Amino acid sequence: PEGWTDLDTKAVDTIRVLAADAVQKVGNGHPGTAISLAPVAYLLFQKVMRHNPAEPHWPGRDRFVLSCGHSSISLYLQLFMGGWGLELEDIEALRTWGSKTPGHPEYGHTDGVEITTGPLGQGIANAVGMAMAARRERGLLDPDAPEGESIFDHQIYCLASDGDIEEGISSEASSLAATQRLGNLTLIYDRNFISIEGHTDIALTEDTAARYAAYGWHVTTVDWLEGGEYRENVKALLDAMDEGRKVTDRPTFIQLRTIIAWPSPTKQNTEGAHGSALGTDEVAALKKVLGFDPDKTFDVDPAVLEHTRGLRDRGAAAQAAWQQGFDTWAETNAEGKALYERMVDDELTPGWEEALPTWDADPKGVATRAASGAVLTALAPRLPELWGGSADLASSNNTTPKGEPSFLPTDRQSEEFKGGPYGRVLHFGIREHAMGAILNGIKVHGGTRPYGGTFLTFSDYMRGAVRLSALMRVPVTYVWTHDSIGLGEDGPTHQPIEHVSSLRLIPGLDVVRPADANETAASWAAILKNKDRPAGLILSRQNLPIVPRGTDGYATTEGVARGAYVLKDFGTADPDKTVIIVATGSEVQLAVGAAEALAGEGVAVRVVSMPCREWFDEQDDAYRESVIPAAVKARVSVEAGVSGSWRDIVGDAGRIVSINHYGASADGALLFKEFGFTTETVAAAARESL
Amino acid sequence: PEGWTDLDTKAVDTIRVLAADAVQKVGNGHPGTAISLAPVAYLLFQKVMRHNPAEPHWPGRDRFVLSCGHSSISLYLQLFMGGWGLELEDIEALRTWGSKTPGHPEYGHTDGVEITTGPLGQGIANAVGMAMAARRERGLLDPDAPEGESIFDHQIYCLASDGDIEEGISSEASSLAATQRLGNLTLIYDRNFISIEGHTDIALTEDTAARYAAYGWHVTTVDWLEGGEYRENVKALLDAMDEGRKVTDRPTFIQLRTIIAWPSPTKQNTEGAHGSALGTDEVAALKKVLGFDPDKTFDVDPAVLEHTRGLRDRGAAAQAAWQQGFDTWAETNAEGKALYERMVDDELTPGWEEALPTWDADPKGVATRAASGAVLTALAPRLPELWGGSADLASSNNTTPKGEPSFLPTDRQSEEFKGGPYGRVLHFGIREHAMGAILNGIKVHGGTRPYGGTFLTFSDYMRGAVRLSALMRVPVTYVWTHDSIGLGEDGPTHQPIEHVSSLRLIPGLDVVRPADANETAASWAAILKNKDRPAGLILSRQNLPIVPRGTDGYATTEGVARGAYVLKDFGTADPDKTVIIVATGSEVQLAVGAAEALAGEGVAVRVVSMPCREWFDEQDDAYRESVIPAAVKARVSVEAGVSGSWRDIVGDAGRIVSINHYGASADGALLFKEFGFTTETVAAAARESL
Repeated sequence: PEGWTDLDTKAVDTIRVLAADAVQKVGNGHPGTAISLAPVAYLLFQKVMRHNPAEPHWPGRDRFVLSCGHSSISLYLQLFMGGWGLELEDIEALRTWGSKTPGHPEYGHTDGVEITTGPLGQGIANAVGMAMAARRERGLLDPDAPEGESIFDHQIYCLASDGDIEEGISSEASSLAATQRLGNLTLIYDRNFISIEGHTDIALTEDTAARYAAYGWHVTTVDWLEGGEYRENVKALLDAMDEGRKVTDRPTFIQLRTIIAWPSPTKQNTEGAHGSALGTDEVAALKKVLGFDPDKTFDVDPAVLEHTRGLRDRGAAAQAAWQQGFDTWAETNAEGKALYERMVDDELTPGWEEALPTWDADPKGVATRAASGAVLTALAPRLPELWGGSADLASSNNTTPKGEPSFLPTDRQSEEFKGGPYGRVLHFGIREHAMGAILNGIKVHGGTRPYGGTFLTFSDYMRGAVRLSALMRVPVTYVWTHDSIGLGEDGPTHQPIEHVSSLRLIPGLDVVRPADANETAASWAAILKNKDRPAGLILSRQNLPIVPRGTDGYATTEGVARGAYVLKDFGTADPDKTVIIVATGSEVQLAVGAAEALAGEGVAVRVVSMPCREWFDEQDDAYRESVIPAAVKARVSVEAGVSGSWRDIVGDAGRIVSINHYGASADGALLFKEFGFTTETVAAAARESL
Repeated sequence: PEGWTDLDTKAVDTIRVLAADAVQKVGNGHPGTAISLAPVAYLLFQKVMRHNPAEPHWPGRDRFVLSCGHSSISLYLQLFMGGWGLELEDIEALRTWGSKTPGHPEYGHTDGVEITTGPLGQGIANAVGMAMAARRERGLLDPDAPEGESIFDHQIYCLASDGDIEEGISSEASSLAATQRLGNLTLIYDRNFISIEGHTDIALTEDTAARYAAYGWHVTTVDWLEGGEYRENVKALLDAMDEGRKVTDRPTFIQLRTIIAWPSPTKQNTEGAHGSALGTDEVAALKKVLGFDPDKTFDVDPAVLEHTRGLRDRGAAAQAAWQQGFDTWAETNAEGKALYERMVDDELTPGWEEALPTWDADPKGVATRAASGAVLTALAPRLPELWGGSADLASSNNTTPKGEPSFLPTDRQSEEFKGGPYGRVLHFGIREHAMGAILNGIKVHGGTRPYGGTFLTFSDYMRGAVRLSALMRVPVTYVWTHDSIGLGEDGPTHQPIEHVSSLRLIPGLDVVRPADANETAASWAAILKNKDRPAGLILSRQNLPIVPRGTDGYATTEGVARGAYVLKDFGTADPDKTVIIVATGSEVQLAVGAAEALAGEGVAVRVVSMPCREWFDEQDDAYRESVIPAAVKARVSVEAGVSGSWRDIVGDAGRIVSINHYGASADGALLFKEFGFTTETVAAAARESL
């Protein structure tokens, strides 16, 4: 293409050779696509994207997602060549302990890596989330600027492989991307016909370009094997990208035919180049083909590096120009500027907590999902950065703040959901896995605070994305309602049994199951204050009594943020006749009921409400001892799910009231009785434990 | 259509009214699609499908999958009208405790229900699995019959909703179905533009028919709203099905435009009809529109029922004709007949276990994934019904029995994988979720015994399907390899940490993690003997030493099937200085190493290998006490994963050696050291526990 020099060509070839060297050195990795995609990544990083290596967090930058995370060396080499801070020694340390260049790109670990990828398909959905976040950000800060003329306009680029295309999560996200008319998104699909099991004909024969056209994407095919001879027609690819950016009412899909590992002489076009080192002979042969000295490793011509590091100047200039635009904008947008700064710092509006609703004691009560809906409605005016929606269960998950507009292209509005491109209520369709990954993409894009809801049982469908929220430590909130057999008639496929316990096992995920409406508000408050971790908010379908607060011996909700607290001590204290009942969510009422019964028998009962075990685990020993004294061995846990790791809490002498089998289709209240969740069974367990 | 009488029309309308009545009676459910899809389901069950209500397990029957399981009453009403054993009282008991008509169809619970559906998208993938199973069955029994002329030829029909189409799992399965050229599969997509959040424009705007054409399906669109007026053109639908059956080299996709809840006067075409009872007024109004007495409920004209129950005669005749064909076939296929009978009874070839390989003691050892591959290779000739593959990780999961042909249309073979339409090695592509659901479909179809592999960390992607294996109690085997940080350089996204523990929480799933090659063979043997439960086989990437067996104090592998056994008692027995170390998989070697060290210090150590906690839990008290005596309180568990529920085993005095955070990208052996999995840490934990 215009302006492409011999130094660019040499830089691309240097990248191929470095990729081969790096994988060869550690002895394992994925050299094939790094070699053949070198010109693609180089074109993006050096010629197409607006970014500044010196300031990787500049909010005005374009974003890049390497959905095929196994090709991490592709990304690292661009960060090295462009000057993000990676040096040759980092490339040499690929995939080794403590390096900046781990096997898959890790968010927060290496400057310039926008998001953790590796589990295939996630990256495409992440990119969709970023594109949505960019539009929401623009809508919050600069909605009236003409198209393409706002400083908040930027582009999202995603590079994907066959595996990304095969995974269902990418199908979900891609369909939604077209519905959402994400004109700021470009997806480049590296169609090389090789995956780990060899030629993809055995498992992938669809016309993917036609599939994306069917979703409603703008689709271009670039065939580097056109006419039978392989030619890396970089200009054709650049033209496709330029054309795609001009299409602003649809995302752009570029299907690029490549030959994996080209021009590696004997391993190109084979799965042998996908996930293994090429071998020293082949690396040497590759170097010969490209005119490099086969005896040298990690050899970079200083002229090449000087050329590519020129990106630092170009990037600084781009940011300076942007800053000028920003300053001009800020002059007439004081309120917007304040919001912008708050968003960049991930700081909530001061005083936002005052808006939280409270509920009076009420034996009939409300469902915690309804309480959560009230919280979202109350917070919406104060926290414009808080947005989210549901996977087609809005009215069940109570994820829609009342009166707020939907995030929808004008022509996609419905009678039920009005809105516009800058709205805040998200409609994911019945696509839980994409929802999770989109939330991750939104959050790492920066600026806003997203949440998404579905039935708890379908957390199974999105677990791959939830794990990545936790691994990346991004504060995404999952709203999982209908949290037990209390769901009722829809039966065992829809009744979570093992889910609360199994989500607790994901390192870094806070699992929060409030006991009543006021605990729900306090849970949301605690979750929103955390900036470095995701949470799953586990909510009831059925009404739960609202506990009196700060009266009659009942605690306030202050202890919620500590994960567990003494809700109330019942009966007179006799150390030999004291039992602690620990409960979560809808079962706290059973603990209270059992305590009242036992107190009448002269037993002292402490009821501990434990909305979040992770938060409780982080308290100091003194607090934990004050809630659950080591000396009291008689303990009962109650949770309408599997016993999981409750033995950790109740100890050898304790009893666990749980359900370790599937539910049934019937009225929820009846199921609680049939499956042994009653005050009687809890009281009986307490007596046994004493 | 031809032969369609007024009684048929009245039967369809009766079904609509019964659906409205049934949901109204229980007060909740999904009447809308049951009302509008009544003619579709009726056409299938009464006019199209070959089946026999009196013998719901007749292997020659066509299969029906209601992917939109929430419309269960659609299915129940066909089973009632056709005479599968459901009566009016069962319809009246919809969604209530103990009924045969639960909220979602449940496999094994109601005659005529082929598979449990409800979690959306699964059913489409299940149907793909059934279609594959039908082809494999034909290949095993009658490969040389001309197309369409074998008694083993039958059809798979699947009915799906917008939600099924949105879920990624259906995209995965649908792409693969076209690659596999499943001409025996027909998918009818009920396009009604209404989901729970109202008009689907807010989340689904793709051209789904074009998408299926892009996959390579034969696609027909039937528009009952053609010309603007709604007319249930049953003939057009029947024609589309007839045409689809003639297309034998591709699956058939029929996009059917309907109006949900039509002709319900005020609720048709609204989400109000989707997931709630219509209300008494609307039910009465619907009855009026259809010419039924609005004051009567559950009113069925005996003439209608007599007409529809005529299916019993037609079904019996169909089966009799089939039986004649079967007898003719059996006359000249004695061997085939024996295999057929074995397959129908789910009985393995007598003596199959003799083929299992054994390994001699070897400190260097082999990876358990490699041992598993050897087992599959050894069993392949004896167990033709055992088949499976991988989600594009065949060479990593070792799921390919050596020398066996792939299950692939002739034109889809590759250089690496030769085979044919009747092969046995499956290639799922990078589609874990669909793989799980396809395995479920294969197994409930009957006849064969499937398995599927991927990396353990990606069990997260398929959890929705795994849960259904367990809920249905179908003996599907999941082969999950690369089972810990031992995976190494690919880093935290690929290293399972919480997965072994979290899979154990799924009720009814056996999680089996063998410690060496011989335990792997014994695990496969135990798994294959179970006919009523799925298993996850958890295998190492890295080599594990092969323990001596039946010598030097080491036990044989006989105890594997009991879930846990004493591998060896080390040191002299002093009750006060005895510790039990319980380990699984790759950590058993650490337990042995620690035991050897401790024995030198005068401590008696019992090493318990615990490949499957579920199997151990099922042993009687005496056996369990013999392995882990209650009196010995000093206990240590070692597993390279989260602590999970290990406290249940080790008790208050015990120690748990675990990893409760994410891994890192580096050499696997180094990670074991860095993260505290060494003989030293295990020995130290034992000393602490003493």
